Amino acid sequence: MPAHIDQLETPTVLIDVDRVEANLTRTQTYADAHGLKLRPHIKTHKLPRFAHRQVELGAIGITCQKLGEAEVMADAGIEDILLPYNIMGAEKLHRLRRLADRVTLAVTADSLATIEGYARAFANATAPLRVLVECDTGMGRCGVQTPDEALALAQAIDASPGLVFEGLMTYPPAGAPAAARAVLAAMAGALRDAGLPPTMISTGGTPDLWAAHETRIATEYRPGTYIYLDRYQVAKGVGTLDDCALTVLTTVVSRPTPDRAVIDAGSKALTSDLLGLSGHGLVMGYPDAVITGLSEEHGTIDLSASERKPAIGERLRIVPNHACPVSNLFDRVHLVSGEHVSATETVAARGRVD
Amino acid sequence: MPAHIDQLETPTVLIDVDRVEANLTRTQTYADAHGLKLRPHIKTHKLPRFAHRQVELGAIGITCQKLGEAEVMADAGIEDILLPYNIMGAEKLHRLRRLADRVTLAVTADSLATIEGYARAFANATAPLRVLVECDTGMGRCGVQTPDEALALAQAIDASPGLVFEGLMTYPPAGAPAAARAVLAAMAGALRDAGLPPTMISTGGTPDLWAAHETRIATEYRPGTYIYLDRYQVAKGVGTLDDCALTVLTTVVSRPTPDRAVIDAGSKALTSDLLGLSGHGLVMGYPDAVITGLSEEHGTIDLSASERKPAIGERLRIVPNHACPVSNLFDRVHLVSGEHVSATETVAARGRVD
Repeated sequence: MPAHIDQLETPTVLIDVDRVEANLTRTQTYADAHGLKLRPHIKTHKLPRFAHRQVELGAIGITCQKLGEAEVMADAGIEDILLPYNIMGAEKLHRLRRLADRVTLAVTADSLATIEGYARAFANATAPLRVLVECDTGMGRCGVQTPDEALALAQAIDASPGLVFEGLMTYPPAGAPAAARAVLAAMAGALRDAGLPPTMISTGGTPDLWAAHETRIATEYRPGTYIYLDRYQVAKGVGTLDDCALTVLTTVVSRPTPDRAVIDAGSKALTSDLLGLSGHGLVMGYPDAVITGLSEEHGTIDLSASERKPAIGERLRIVPNHACPVSNLFDRVHLVSGEHVSATETVAARGRVD
Repeated sequence: MPAHIDQLETPTVLIDVDRVEANLTRTQTYADAHGLKLRPHIKTHKLPRFAHRQVELGAIGITCQKLGEAEVMADAGIEDILLPYNIMGAEKLHRLRRLADRVTLAVTADSLATIEGYARAFANATAPLRVLVECDTGMGRCGVQTPDEALALAQAIDASPGLVFEGLMTYPPAGAPAAARAVLAAMAGALRDAGLPPTMISTGGTPDLWAAHETRIATEYRPGTYIYLDRYQVAKGVGTLDDCALTVLTTVVSRPTPDRAVIDAGSKALTSDLLGLSGHGLVMGYPDAVITGLSEEHGTIDLSASERKPAIGERLRIVPNHACPVSNLFDRVHLVSGEHVSATETVAARGRVD
């Protein structure tokens, strides 16, 4: 196995394990200080190794966005999983039932149709399925819109023999935690008033991680990207570039003009995610270089503002705009400490689309 | 195996084999009529089955953008491969040498550094490596900028014992074939004048496919997306929506408001590629529905302009903006004829990043 990153073929993904450890510890310490339970979202790393480490450090379980990811994590011995998704379709509900037999599981619903599916699948289950109602607190994605709707669904869950009403789940919009808190509080209030107080209130998102304790009614927080951070999270002030644990190692394969470099990392390595940022990532050591364009296998860098210009054949490390989908593009990632490669990990939950 | 698309779990990828056959045949017929050799780019499908079909129909070989893709295709029995990329690094050059032992191979270079790498790797090879000079004809990515540079590299290749100068390669910018032709002609002219006439002149791109015959000096054309087409190619006029062979099958998992639907296909299924389009794909049967946002596992659809509104649990088929990176996100795709599933194929060259 290569012992130094210079021996790796490019493009590839490097995960700085020292930064991972610091990011996990810092966040767990913060959560502990505020009596908030952490349930990390594994979509960012998709690695059983890190899911176990998160639990070892104090997380009460993990969050998976897809059933297929949860199955991988259950296979790897993770015992407590939240699946904050409307699981629909006969085959998926069958898989969900099997998953519930081997891990402590909770799911979400934002419609009667979803609840009816769960109820059918768990009608004769030995243990009921714990179901949270998903609330739209401003994200504009899934979730009930009003306290009345939240209550109606909670009552429907409560009335289903195979189900138990567990609480509320939301994914608040980045940068608007106060507004989201107000909506969530109204939903929770309606449930309490109706005699169905939520046991679990789960919120999440790395961008507003350091304000998590201000959502006082929340019992759990589901950050994902905090383990690696990325250019977007740095822009949001969650950490610094020196905290970013995931980088894409790439080679300059062309220097066609004095001001242009082309690297062997394109959208198939960095993704096209911009997240409102300008440019497709940050070149470490070349702060004034701008990744202006990506095609699938090429990244084009404008060096006109950069005094130093990388040479052809030089290797660069790119902090991507968004770390999570990068993990999904690589079968394997390399764990590094500085420039030393300590292990190569298969991204076990990569590509679990369903 | 499921026999009908209704039995498939979502999200997943459907490939309409009748449309594939029509797209391949139409393009091969066009190329044959103009005496142009086709060398399809397999990045779009990444499937040995379709690479073989392309060759059966008359393609003279295939194009792969990455060494890893070429290795998969060589394993599958494809015998003639163009790798239009600067292959750099000791391990990759070693792999390139091994690949050249089992297929008819050509590569490209746009710098002395790349040529020197090839020359070292093939110094004592029994058969020389065929090298084309990559030209920048307006794309602004890799490639030499002037006829003088093209000539200097051709001479360097010609002077290297293990290499043979084969010709010119370009990827012209979409929508500007005439300007690209002029640049390419100037490069080729300089080489002919210097006694190094290019044997092979390779150009490509599906957007300008139907103007391919107008580049009279080109000997080969490398279209990729023509096999599936997609929303971008339809916008460019290459075909119609009824020609699009790749769709993402997805389920409406939430209808949180009268005008909003959320599907289980997000950027992990559709990619974030916009390619200058508005919206993240086209919903078949709902021409006025707009996919306004994607997160990794959710797609948000605005139905305010759509008279018909899909119900929760309904399955939708999405024509993506860009088909090629979608192929790279799925381990398997389903071949369909109408709504009948005829086969499930492993995307053998998926994720071959290096």
